[in-house]
Amino acid sequence: MGGHLRYFEDFHVGQRIAFGRYTVTQSEIIEFAKRYDPQVFHIDETHAVTVELGGIMASGWHTTAIFMRLAVDAYLGDAAVLTSPGVDELRWLAPVRVGDIISGEAVVEQARLSVSKPDRGIVTTAVHLWNDDKIEVLRMTTHAFLRVGPHQ
Amino acid sequence: MGGHLRYFEDFHVGQRIAFGRYTVTQSEIIEFAKRYDPQVFHIDETHAVTVELGGIMASGWHTTAIFMRLAVDAYLGDAAVLTSPGVDELRWLAPVRVGDIISGEAVVEQARLSVSKPDRGIVTTAVHLWNDDKIEVLRMTTHAFLRVGPHQ
Repeated sequence: MGGHLRYFEDFHVGQRIAFGRYTVTQSEIIEFAKRYDPQVFHIDETHAVTVELGGIMASGWHTTAIFMRLAVDAYLGDAAVLTSPGVDELRWLAPVRVGDIISGEAVVEQARLSVSKPDRGIVTTAVHLWNDDKIEVLRMTTHAFLRVGPHQ
Repeated sequence: MGGHLRYFEDFHVGQRIAFGRYTVTQSEIIEFAKRYDPQVFHIDETHAVTVELGGIMASGWHTTAIFMRLAVDAYLGDAAVLTSPGVDELRWLAPVRVGDIISGEAVVEQARLSVSKPDRGIVTTAVHLWNDDKIEVLRMTTHAFLRVGPHQ
């Protein structure tokens, strides 16, 4: 985090933004899942289905929340973001397990000015998350509206 | 929730599954966002950006977590789900605000047996969430692997 706000024009195609690390605990997996995704394989390690699936795994929506925390800490927290219209091709590629250390990156794929609202642009990024065994656990394409800087 | 497990063959194209209702509170929006998405417009109602955007709004990933809770309560909780490969065309269409009562539905768009693993099928649904003003706040296409029933 550089202390100054990043605007639309601070992003360019090919730019890679490295994320930090997020350690996933059993208590956090269960806490999140009890509230938002109480399927047995997220909350009950002794259930037959959980055992068949190799143990407790994080809710896929917990993984996307962890992505967001990593992204805010890495670059969105000091970017002039004006919300996001959505995400494409979100894929949960491998389970996120207790003790996994998640990291990843965002690569800017497209950055274009809005035609209808010239005070903003849209930045499209390819996101990848992996665990500490370098197994990719999540992939998606994100879109975000960012404000154009005041010096333009 | 009918008490018996729903298998792949219990889902058919055109089937509509109505969700219950979820009331979104300011404390839950802020709690989720402080942990996973601490951008100002999710946590600081007095910030100029928040005011410009019309007040605090839920993180988009909080909205997807709320979707999941509604879906588990409506049908996934007693379905023989074997994880999900992903989601397509996730769109946050309108902000989710303090006090909103979120509801929605899933409509089965496709249900086909796996070719490589005949013990399961994949069910694709179109999901819609709306608030109590009937404004659509989220839309996406979900995919889930479901086990084929033991009586097949």
